[in-house]
Amino acid sequence: MLPLTSRSGERWRAVLAGVLVWLAIGAHARAEDGHALWLRYAEARPLDMEDTGIGLGEVTAPGATPTQRAARDELRRGLAGLLGSAPRFREGPGGAGGLVLGTPDSSPWIAPMRRELDGLGEEGFLLRETRVDGRKTLLVAARRDIGVLYGVFHLLRLMQTGVELDGLEVREVPQVKLRVLDHWDNLDGYVERGYAGRSLWDWHTLPDWRDPRYTDYARANASLGINGSVLNNVNAEALSLSHAYLRKAAALADVFRPYGIRVYLGARFSAPIELGGLATADPLDPGVQRWWRDKADEIYALIPDFGGFLVKANSEGQPGPQDYARTHAEGANLLADALAAHGGVVMWRAFVYAPDVAEDRARQAYDEFAGLDGALRDNVLVQVKNGPIDFQPREPFHPLFGAMPRTPLMMEFQVTKEYLGFATHLVYLGPLYEEALRSDTHAQGAGSTVAKVVDGSLDGHALSGIAGVANIGDDRTWSGSHFDQANWYAFGRLAWNPRQSARDIAADWVAMTFSPDPGVVAPIVDMMMGSREAAVDYMTPLGLHHLMARGHHYGPGPWVDGGPRADWTSVYYHRADARGIGFDRSTRGSDAVSQYAPEVARTFDDIEQVPEALLLWFHHVPWDHPMRSGRPLWDEMVHRYTRGVRYVDAMQATWETLRGRIDGPRHAHVAAFLAIQRAEAQWWRDASVAYFQSINGLPLPAGELPPPHPLAYYEALQFPHAPGDGR
Amino acid sequence: MLPLTSRSGERWRAVLAGVLVWLAIGAHARAEDGHALWLRYAEARPLDMEDTGIGLGEVTAPGATPTQRAARDELRRGLAGLLGSAPRFREGPGGAGGLVLGTPDSSPWIAPMRRELDGLGEEGFLLRETRVDGRKTLLVAARRDIGVLYGVFHLLRLMQTGVELDGLEVREVPQVKLRVLDHWDNLDGYVERGYAGRSLWDWHTLPDWRDPRYTDYARANASLGINGSVLNNVNAEALSLSHAYLRKAAALADVFRPYGIRVYLGARFSAPIELGGLATADPLDPGVQRWWRDKADEIYALIPDFGGFLVKANSEGQPGPQDYARTHAEGANLLADALAAHGGVVMWRAFVYAPDVAEDRARQAYDEFAGLDGALRDNVLVQVKNGPIDFQPREPFHPLFGAMPRTPLMMEFQVTKEYLGFATHLVYLGPLYEEALRSDTHAQGAGSTVAKVVDGSLDGHALSGIAGVANIGDDRTWSGSHFDQANWYAFGRLAWNPRQSARDIAADWVAMTFSPDPGVVAPIVDMMMGSREAAVDYMTPLGLHHLMARGHHYGPGPWVDGGPRADWTSVYYHRADARGIGFDRSTRGSDAVSQYAPEVARTFDDIEQVPEALLLWFHHVPWDHPMRSGRPLWDEMVHRYTRGVRYVDAMQATWETLRGRIDGPRHAHVAAFLAIQRAEAQWWRDASVAYFQSINGLPLPAGELPPPHPLAYYEALQFPHAPGDGR
Repeated sequence: MLPLTSRSGERWRAVLAGVLVWLAIGAHARAEDGHALWLRYAEARPLDMEDTGIGLGEVTAPGATPTQRAARDELRRGLAGLLGSAPRFREGPGGAGGLVLGTPDSSPWIAPMRRELDGLGEEGFLLRETRVDGRKTLLVAARRDIGVLYGVFHLLRLMQTGVELDGLEVREVPQVKLRVLDHWDNLDGYVERGYAGRSLWDWHTLPDWRDPRYTDYARANASLGINGSVLNNVNAEALSLSHAYLRKAAALADVFRPYGIRVYLGARFSAPIELGGLATADPLDPGVQRWWRDKADEIYALIPDFGGFLVKANSEGQPGPQDYARTHAEGANLLADALAAHGGVVMWRAFVYAPDVAEDRARQAYDEFAGLDGALRDNVLVQVKNGPIDFQPREPFHPLFGAMPRTPLMMEFQVTKEYLGFATHLVYLGPLYEEALRSDTHAQGAGSTVAKVVDGSLDGHALSGIAGVANIGDDRTWSGSHFDQANWYAFGRLAWNPRQSARDIAADWVAMTFSPDPGVVAPIVDMMMGSREAAVDYMTPLGLHHLMARGHHYGPGPWVDGGPRADWTSVYYHRADARGIGFDRSTRGSDAVSQYAPEVARTFDDIEQVPEALLLWFHHVPWDHPMRSGRPLWDEMVHRYTRGVRYVDAMQATWETLRGRIDGPRHAHVAAFLAIQRAEAQWWRDASVAYFQSINGLPLPAGELPPPHPLAYYEALQFPHAPGDGR
Repeated sequence: MLPLTSRSGERWRAVLAGVLVWLAIGAHARAEDGHALWLRYAEARPLDMEDTGIGLGEVTAPGATPTQRAARDELRRGLAGLLGSAPRFREGPGGAGGLVLGTPDSSPWIAPMRRELDGLGEEGFLLRETRVDGRKTLLVAARRDIGVLYGVFHLLRLMQTGVELDGLEVREVPQVKLRVLDHWDNLDGYVERGYAGRSLWDWHTLPDWRDPRYTDYARANASLGINGSVLNNVNAEALSLSHAYLRKAAALADVFRPYGIRVYLGARFSAPIELGGLATADPLDPGVQRWWRDKADEIYALIPDFGGFLVKANSEGQPGPQDYARTHAEGANLLADALAAHGGVVMWRAFVYAPDVAEDRARQAYDEFAGLDGALRDNVLVQVKNGPIDFQPREPFHPLFGAMPRTPLMMEFQVTKEYLGFATHLVYLGPLYEEALRSDTHAQGAGSTVAKVVDGSLDGHALSGIAGVANIGDDRTWSGSHFDQANWYAFGRLAWNPRQSARDIAADWVAMTFSPDPGVVAPIVDMMMGSREAAVDYMTPLGLHHLMARGHHYGPGPWVDGGPRADWTSVYYHRADARGIGFDRSTRGSDAVSQYAPEVARTFDDIEQVPEALLLWFHHVPWDHPMRSGRPLWDEMVHRYTRGVRYVDAMQATWETLRGRIDGPRHAHVAAFLAIQRAEAQWWRDASVAYFQSINGLPLPAGELPPPHPLAYYEALQFPHAPGDGR
């Protein structure tokens, strides 16, 4: 070395100074505001990464198609964050081997694997550490480009969560065909049951302005394998099917296409009248049939890979085939026939309200739909909510699962927390989804889980689907809070594979979103895993349901009575009186239990066998009924209300221990929301205790504090502008 | 130097590598999405900055009060960006002198200047390069902390715009006392006439969650000297005055206070009925008076520096004193008396609609208010829109300016572009504001400009104010587009000093927002300066006004007729017939001209003297009237419509030349919006030409293309979900 190196030192110092200029700017701009979701790629541990010996910074990948370029872009973004520098894209594997991406058609290094890859279907992928020309190489291989993109996201997830890449061998195939987000977004930007700001879609500037956030939305979904997006509310406006709006939807479809996401639309059944000027929307009317065929042709001319329609018909005031004395099957088949030639599907919702109040609302979907099994076209899925009422903190699984073997049943989960504290409550829904999917319908004997119904394996359906009612809006966090991102994430992961564990998914999410440090992951995962049960406790313990305030569904309203429909009140559901509480759905009551397979029905019907978590769902129970804890029912109820509040205390305490291990902005945001949740959990507990005490006149168990206000105080609280109200 | 330096080079290289890791992450995160507004501090030119010899990286500044800390925080942020490293805060001026901030009370180095600073008032400041202990030092001095903060922002602006700091001497005192943004934000988050997403205020999570964007909003306003914020719509809900919402407003006031911003509320006149349960809101009723006094006491207990009320009364259906046969003065004084003890003011709007349609809507505010001069309490300002109709692309100045010498008249500008193409059209409003402020009322002879009325100097008022109807929402750009930020910026700068030049302000804004490179600033400023005249041309040339489509005010609707009120139609305003076009407001017509001072009235009354830009505002003119260009009126109209469209072509061409000099994301965003503007300018031109041709039957001038569609096509266009519609 020559003394020249002293100049070299100076030069590097000068470069460093220049870099620091930009760093200062960049660092200032890098607010941890949650917008990067689980794709932060920020916990750089470069040494760990280099240790694999694979040379991840060298990438051989095709870039000819939009999806191929999306995979390269994501690798560029991800590896720059994780390795500290952007990868180099090469023509072929080099000295260090590196990453090799492709399909048999796009890559000569993948071509020899054609036969093996055929087993992965259209969307599956393979990650394999191997040797190419003697060099240690990591393959991301698939039959189709989209599989490669999914593989890239999978690999980046492994890196973000600290998984050892040495000797890697991963084969992933999605278990469900349609993995769809339902956006209940109105065309004016309002999101029904949305707690994350306005609709992501700026219909006014579409199709001309394609906001970059549309691409980020597609990236986030592709990272989970979500492959469909219903753009507008199930309470649909006919206008969404007008040519002007179809052009807007087509612009979104163009943005989403490279990420494997198809666009669907909510279709208003009476659109032939409102948009087409016809006199009827009768599904058997030839003019109506022609209108829908023409409309489908128009749509596919603009959106060649249009997914299909989601329909809410004859429910809560929406038009439908029953307006013409036709069945749901006749209605669904009308649309299915229009779409069939183009490969589209109809997702027909089983969430229906009869014009007259039923003796037991929980029975209605089964009563209307079970008999239609076999009457629907091949391209119709019946979309069924996880439980028979409406996305309550806890419901038994929906009795239609297992009851329509000839029909693909699409699961409808709610990701947005309409009944679970909006975006301010930390409630991880993974356990709720898992509980529903693992429920055993016994439709074909033990082990006939809801997951097997949904993924089509129980009844041999090639068509299968899971839908999640999205919790996404234009809020900077996308989901209205940092922790609600986990629900989007968990939904997507379970849609890909309904047998995954909610805890494992939470662990991945925490590692990617906050930090892979086990000292961060473990306490947060624990906190998350108990959070849903806590919400059940402080809102509706022991199988209680539908006790929220009217309209906005924010806060407690067990006293809600009167109004347009009995089955929109709380007293209809809890049936509390001086003697006891609960809805008798046993064989001695509404007999809703008999909608389940006999093995299940027997368990639910028996007050001694029914899980306590569902006790008051299925039985009217005396206040002094002895519970497994040894407490009488009333004492157990109060115990659980209070336990739910205590859990939020514990979450606050845990979160406090993470101060300094989580970046300041997000720590403060979550802490503020936990404080809101704490106060509202107490409110739920106090209002519920005050109300039920007014019914049963019983004293509180020893050690339980009385509500600080009289019942009238809670009843008088008004929230005319609570977000997300239907309107 | 020893060979050791070779190791030094390696060491620096290693540090650099580490830095690059973070840089890659930071750079990835630093999307140029416009969220930093004009406070990007990103165009680092460190060498220029170091050349001053002042040592700007060394700062002596107190940090005891929230406002002092805000000044330090802003310097830290700004200098880190502009100089490349965060400044050092010291106990006193050091070797390099550096920056010294403070007031006589907070800084021993400023204390000797007490007498000199007294001349700066409560909000003024002084920037001065001087020597302290023989060291070159830059002082930022003021009587009060807020003046120091304003001085810091001023200094940072000078640095951002490349002004030479050597020998700096700046004295700034705001010319207007109340510099206020009016947010027409409903409590449900909807923004009336808002084109930038939802309300910035998340009422649902307030007061518990104080979103960091509230602080950024306050910073942006303080950087301009804006010192007031009316949080809710003038079409106010009584609920905004309830205790629960006052607590929410108080949380915002707490965030804003360090930045010198007071909170005001829109007050619904009938709140004593709706909120207080009284039978009347009659301003002479003692119970009503007591209710408002009690309400004021309640507010000031929560918000000690509450600014006061903004009131829209007896206008467009709002309640008001006339409901009880009382005058606007009696109504305003009711609220003024309640606030007086606390130092609050009432901003009472002169924008009124009589229940009956007037012969000439333009006369109404004057007819109702001019006679009340002298009847209002000292703490009442009458808030007057810039023109007598409603924020049209061009209006003459409002005749009330100059007509109420005993009353402080507060200017109300609209920053949101309700009638100027929403957020998608690039229309810089600086020239509109400038034109209004420089208009000569002749109230006390020549030179009695509107600016002098507004700043109180013409009539010797200590109380003065300017309000801007905000264009701010939760859109990432804050204003719905990058260029609409310039209108917020220009409003704030002109509120501080109404005599500033719109062009100079634009130049500052461009330098701060995009780049101080003259090759960027000059073409963009030129583009901006002509943009408002272009919108006048393609929408409503030659004094035409109020020709937009009904309700949403998006797009042309010169055919609008019928409906609830004649003065909400277009035909009422343009009065086109086979003979001619325009509203005769001359002495031979509605005589609205006589509301102006005689010198002004004479000019407006005379078809030969009236500025052509206002011709059809004041006169009904034959289609063949010879214009100064030599063209007949009809040809001139068509010429101007087309000229407006051509201007957008030119803006597109200019913007295209800036590709590569503006960051990609913002360049693309603006380009997309210009394309929308281009198409919509053409639409305005074509629809207007088609309509007026249907009235006058005249051929198009040579070279003018006919509209591509028949008139019926334009009339049939519907936009049920155009943003910002009143509701």
